[in-house]
Amino acid sequence: MEITANVLLAVGASPAMCDTPSESADFAAIASAVLINAGTPTRDQYEGMRQAIQGATVAGTPWVLDPVAVGALQERTDFAREILQFAPHAIRGNASEIVALAGLGSGGRGVDATDDVAAALPAAKQLAVQTKGVVAISGESDFIVSAHQVTKVDSGHPLMPIVIGTGCALGALTAAYLGAAHIRGIAAHDAVVAAHAHTGAAGMVAGESARGPGSFAPAWVDALYNLTPEHIAELVTVQEVSSS
Amino acid sequence: MEITANVLLAVGASPAMCDTPSESADFAAIASAVLINAGTPTRDQYEGMRQAIQGATVAGTPWVLDPVAVGALQERTDFAREILQFAPHAIRGNASEIVALAGLGSGGRGVDATDDVAAALPAAKQLAVQTKGVVAISGESDFIVSAHQVTKVDSGHPLMPIVIGTGCALGALTAAYLGAAHIRGIAAHDAVVAAHAHTGAAGMVAGESARGPGSFAPAWVDALYNLTPEHIAELVTVQEVSSS
Amino acid sequence: MEITANVLLAVGASPAMCDTPSESADFAAIASAVLINAGTPTRDQYEGMRQAIQGATVAGTPWVLDPVAVGALQERTDFAREILQFAPHAIRGNASEIVALAGLGSGGRGVDATDDVAAALPAAKQLAVQTKGVVAISGESDFIVSAHQVTKVDSGHPLMPIVIGTGCALGALTAAYLGAAHIRGIAAHDAVVAAHAHTGAAGMVAGESARGPGSFAPAWVDALYNLTPEHIAELVTVQEVSSS
Repeated sequence: MEITANVLLAVGASPAMCDTPSESADFAAIASAVLINAGTPTRDQYEGMRQAIQGATVAGTPWVLDPVAVGALQERTDFAREILQFAPHAIRGNASEIVALAGLGSGGRGVDATDDVAAALPAAKQLAVQTKGVVAISGESDFIVSAHQVTKVDSGHPLMPIVIGTGCALGALTAAYLGAAHIRGIAAHDAVVAAHAHTGAAGMVAGESARGPGSFAPAWVDALYNLTPEHIAELVTVQEVSSS
Repeated sequence: MEITANVLLAVGASPAMCDTPSESADFAAIASAVLINAGTPTRDQYEGMRQAIQGATVAGTPWVLDPVAVGALQERTDFAREILQFAPHAIRGNASEIVALAGLGSGGRGVDATDDVAAALPAAKQLAVQTKGVVAISGESDFIVSAHQVTKVDSGHPLMPIVIGTGCALGALTAAYLGAAHIRGIAAHDAVVAAHAHTGAAGMVAGESARGPGSFAPAWVDALYNLTPEHIAELVTVQEVSSS
Repeated sequence: MEITANVLLAVGASPAMCDTPSESADFAAIASAVLINAGTPTRDQYEGMRQAIQGATVAGTPWVLDPVAVGALQERTDFAREILQFAPHAIRGNASEIVALAGLGSGGRGVDATDDVAAALPAAKQLAVQTKGVVAISGESDFIVSAHQVTKVDSGHPLMPIVIGTGCALGALTAAYLGAAHIRGIAAHDAVVAAHAHTGAAGMVAGESARGPGSFAPAWVDALYNLTPEHIAELVTVQEVSSS
């Protein structure tokens, strides 16, 4: 939660963490966007997430599902599939999580990606069609998948997967970009691509100065804060992929 | 919680986080000071906070209320107002939270300060009289308000509000200073001023070397650890304000 | 939890935090090792820990008990003593916690070590015999105690105790080393010694560049990531102590 909040503040968003059933719906209604992160949930948090989704749905607030460890653990797999019916505006996970969420594979052991990113494309496409939303598969290359568009984003740094919270923070940045795009009438697909490009570009900058995963984390937050759109565009390769 | 604990350790305090109903009262009785932080509470944590306040009251332990997001969310607003009757020795919040806690305004959207710090002075004075305690309004300038004294503290750095936990850590440092002052017979008002001066001076030092909010956080903890009273006094402007 | 996860990732482990009763047993069964950390538990987390221990026991997964603040707080003292019957493969605590867990002393005020490390040796020996496991007492020198072997490890840095999570992270590293040793048929005693040596050596390296506890933390994670076995062996003094 700490790095997620810091990353959101670094890019100019105003994060608030709220997971109590009694406050979630109210909060989701006044927020610009909502992130539902399925990591380490308690009973109350499951109920809080359901309330937040309801609040977001009623208020028309865009929301993002991050299906952490879905596939590896039964309860959160059931929960994540249940809330798919409420049509998240975006889903962000690693290949194993996306495959398991779509019901097409067995998933990994926790949060590691054991499935290949490219192999998860059919699962992402199925989820995108089902939810009418955007599905992002995170990995060495990221794939952003909508019903009629697939975009490949190449960026990032090998230290990123061994810094805790970079994946969760990417989910949160996806929500922030989606909220900002919603207000400005920018397409959700482009917002999700931009979130991944900003995150990965910051990783490339941080990787230049980091002496290990410990110093990578603050350098990454600094880069998220300092990067200009022009610098991001220079660093990241964004490529439209022919959609099957 | 992590940065709060690190900040307390950096200034020589011995933090322990405890939010379970069954342990809170015992812990509050042996602690030198207690911080009640209303951020993201679960049902159990509400009960744990009530128990801690009771334990602190019976034992005569000074305690601090940090009314996080009070005004923005109904349940914690009700809770914070309910516990006002137990007379916290100090309250620390931003202008919106202080105004909402006093029942004089509508509050902001989460933890952002939407009300002006100076405009919150009447609310702070009202709360100080009601609780016979010290009320601190955090902002670009901090105002420390007691029934018959108002002190303005100018310090800090523009990066501080975009590093998560700096506000919560200030609440915790207020509790640490209050506990130390209580033992030494130093006035609570002066202890709260000192906590804000130390925190803000460390922000000024950190701001000199930080390349963004990511590197600001560890530099700030380093500065809290390294600063001498003399150096703090050089950096910070403390001014008595004529009390209305 | 954040620094614990980062430290595990830095040494090549794959951490997953899971504390819900409904998921803990399943997770413990597929994990290589389990850490039971008694810090700030909720009711659900107590139940989650019991389930994890059961899952680990059935699957033969090594597990570590970190008796945080045992002795200072009654409920977690009762809990930690209750689960001793399930024979943790390793226990890691400071002198006060080990003495209190063995029922031989009153413990400290929270997580500070008020008992002398060497004075806790009889308590550690008693626990090692009772559980047929390894008991580590953390302090300026660490003592690793099995029924018939006592090893003294000298390493670390004075800033370590004032960085939150270094103790908890050491518990987690103990679990990681124990899991890796279990698979390779290496003695549990040696695994626990290695975990303490790696942790302390990284502290020595971090202490060279740190300007305070804030910059110590990322430097320590970097060092855990970068250190070679040869470099650890150069930095740390490991000594067999005649077992009484």
